[in-house]
Amino acid sequence: MSKTEPRTLPGFMELLPEEQILFDQIKTTIEKTYQKFGFLPLDTPIIELSEVLLAKAGGETEKQIYRFEKGDTDLSLRFDLTVPLAKFVAKNYGNLSFPFRRYQIGKVYRGEKAQKGRFREFYQCDIDVIGDGELSIINDAEMPSVIYNVFKELGFDDFTIKINNRKLLNGLFQSINQKENSVEILRIIDKIEKIGKEKVIQELKELNVEETAIEKIIGFIEISGTTEQKIEKLKNLGIENETFKEGLDELTQIVKYIGIFGVPEKNFEVDLTIARGLDYYTGTVYETFLNKYRELGSICSGGRYENLAEYYTDKKLPGVGISIGLTRLFYKLNELRLIEAKQKSISKVLVIPMIDDLEVPIKVATSLREKGINTEIFLNDKKLKAKMKYADKLKIPYVIVIGEDEVKSGKFKIRNMETGEEKEETF
Amino acid sequence: MSKTEPRTLPGFMELLPEEQILFDQIKTTIEKTYQKFGFLPLDTPIIELSEVLLAKAGGETEKQIYRFEKGDTDLSLRFDLTVPLAKFVAKNYGNLSFPFRRYQIGKVYRGEKAQKGRFREFYQCDIDVIGDGELSIINDAEMPSVIYNVFKELGFDDFTIKINNRKLLNGLFQSINQKENSVEILRIIDKIEKIGKEKVIQELKELNVEETAIEKIIGFIEISGTTEQKIEKLKNLGIENETFKEGLDELTQIVKYIGIFGVPEKNFEVDLTIARGLDYYTGTVYETFLNKYRELGSICSGGRYENLAEYYTDKKLPGVGISIGLTRLFYKLNELRLIEAKQKSISKVLVIPMIDDLEVPIKVATSLREKGINTEIFLNDKKLKAKMKYADKLKIPYVIVIGEDEVKSGKFKIRNMETGEEKEETF
Repeated sequence: MSKTEPRTLPGFMELLPEEQILFDQIKTTIEKTYQKFGFLPLDTPIIELSEVLLAKAGGETEKQIYRFEKGDTDLSLRFDLTVPLAKFVAKNYGNLSFPFRRYQIGKVYRGEKAQKGRFREFYQCDIDVIGDGELSIINDAEMPSVIYNVFKELGFDDFTIKINNRKLLNGLFQSINQKENSVEILRIIDKIEKIGKEKVIQELKELNVEETAIEKIIGFIEISGTTEQKIEKLKNLGIENETFKEGLDELTQIVKYIGIFGVPEKNFEVDLTIARGLDYYTGTVYETFLNKYRELGSICSGGRYENLAEYYTDKKLPGVGISIGLTRLFYKLNELRLIEAKQKSISKVLVIPMIDDLEVPIKVATSLREKGINTEIFLNDKKLKAKMKYADKLKIPYVIVIGEDEVKSGKFKIRNMETGEEKEETF
Repeated sequence: MSKTEPRTLPGFMELLPEEQILFDQIKTTIEKTYQKFGFLPLDTPIIELSEVLLAKAGGETEKQIYRFEKGDTDLSLRFDLTVPLAKFVAKNYGNLSFPFRRYQIGKVYRGEKAQKGRFREFYQCDIDVIGDGELSIINDAEMPSVIYNVFKELGFDDFTIKINNRKLLNGLFQSINQKENSVEILRIIDKIEKIGKEKVIQELKELNVEETAIEKIIGFIEISGTTEQKIEKLKNLGIENETFKEGLDELTQIVKYIGIFGVPEKNFEVDLTIARGLDYYTGTVYETFLNKYRELGSICSGGRYENLAEYYTDKKLPGVGISIGLTRLFYKLNELRLIEAKQKSISKVLVIPMIDDLEVPIKVATSLREKGINTEIFLNDKKLKAKMKYADKLKIPYVIVIGEDEVKSGKFKIRNMETGEEKEETF
């Protein structure tokens, strides 16, 4: 028979079992942490009507969509978990309790250019809190606590959650009459770490921003010091603008509560340069960095938005949320060997029968399973060496070899594969 | 702004949080049980090259495929988890340890006619053991033990795992020279429960099967009694055919070991009428029924196959596996109210602040979370009644209301929402 070459599409992650075990541990850690904060599970379809999914989309996003027809129906694969959430909340508004706290962990699809470390199918791990009409700003202070707990649980210490408020930036631009240039200015500011202050000033000049306005912008993004000092300096900027004041008020409150939520000072920071996209977030914004691996970019981002579902409903649904792009994060952490599985195998014990009658080995395995211990039996007919090699390759920590002697005596030796130690047990 | 109606495609399950919690509990129970038997996790892409995915498909299956082009690439969504497994094993043959035991729980897609209880996107929960060249028949005896543990863990008692061996049927047909009619005969036999014995005989006659052959077929499928009696009667049929003898040998061994694997006699049965599809399985076949709800059909099925990946590789890879169609099963169990969530909420405790300064409530919640207790804080400004109603609707079992008195005294009352009992705690 002629064979088809078995292959997986570029941009699609498919892991060997050992890596999959690690991936699943990370995913479970994220999920458990989301649950610890009382977020409810949601699982929406991967396929939606294009009309529904793309109600808002446009430009770059739309080009990347996996879109196709089945029969007469125009379908698309979801490209994030936010649009499905918006659809879900608008659709089920009457059946939900608000604030609606949901998490969703699932695959999304973007037909990006395939390149190393870029994925077309990837997991997002999202949480959002959606208010009905209003949503307390304290929710914005809780998000960093979730981020902190996730990365702490994953074994990281040296990471920083950066916080800003879009209202500060928007208010600043309003106060210097640069509202219409704000998109461009944000784009330029965003590059300051890469291109430096002088280049930023030059680009702002090229945009025909007045000297005094440029001074104010630079003065704003150069604010430094401790969190308290930054807040103090923002107050002292003397910007008489309602949006700015609102933003400063919100930031002050959030900063006050972040510590109470248990996030150590060393793990968060007010960073006035982060903006996160240009049209979606309207208040608090978050980014998270591994300090020794800044090149990974933000590993957990999000923010506050005014209105989740305006394309579907008249209800005002403000929200705040964060998202972890798990597939890319895993790829990077794995590549840099920054993370290790807590348990490297699924089975805790491998039972190795060296006799023909499998009754006793099976009973031993069954008894272990009944005690809640993941156990497998090597059932194929191989030499002992091959069976031990199997345990070794799968990193199964314990083996029990069962021969005639063990069957007769009813005593079994549990061998620790790492230390070689043996312990006698009866079952 | 004109609104798009937020809607979900027919045939796509999207649950409210309370149902999703139950769904996830079932899914987790299945996964944990698969792990207890040492199956390794696998997560393959939902999108594959059509050429790869459809290497074997044809007829009905192919019509149901979600197939489309992206750029110049002909893509399809997976319609089961077996073809992706075959691709994976063929592709990674050199990097796997055999017998390769894997589980996969994921969504698959079939563009079936949309009707109540039929889904186009649904979860399959599969396990398979794949051998390299050969695979011990004892693996076939272990599968019922996995099925038994899954449904036991889900809270069921009254279910039957039915077992047959395709070699018995094939051998029988060979011995009566009806090999070329076997597909048709199987189709007719399969209906015996519905149409009765007389109708079956009549249809076999219409197929031009000789009277003596019909007698043998009926004699075969009418074999009854205990498992031992059935095996004995099969031996006494006197069918001199190698395939039949092989099948009987395998069945005898499996039956011997099933009990050793811990499956009680009342939960399994040899049923000589089940055949499971027509071209895939080659040996043992399984079906599972809830005895009081036979109308659900088989809730867990599978079997032994000669060669997993012949479309991709020359390697002979025999396997045995089972599959649970979770989405349909959940739909039915939920509709019949046959299953309940062990925990109906994600949060165990709702902290309800009745003061402006949230420091103490947040600290209480943080301290609970640090103890591993899922906790949320009601952060929006509402009357106590509304906050209690929220806890009630989300079925959160405990609330802690925090007012001035509690802050002053440092003593907090944990209220059991079901009994109304209150217990004082300090944090």
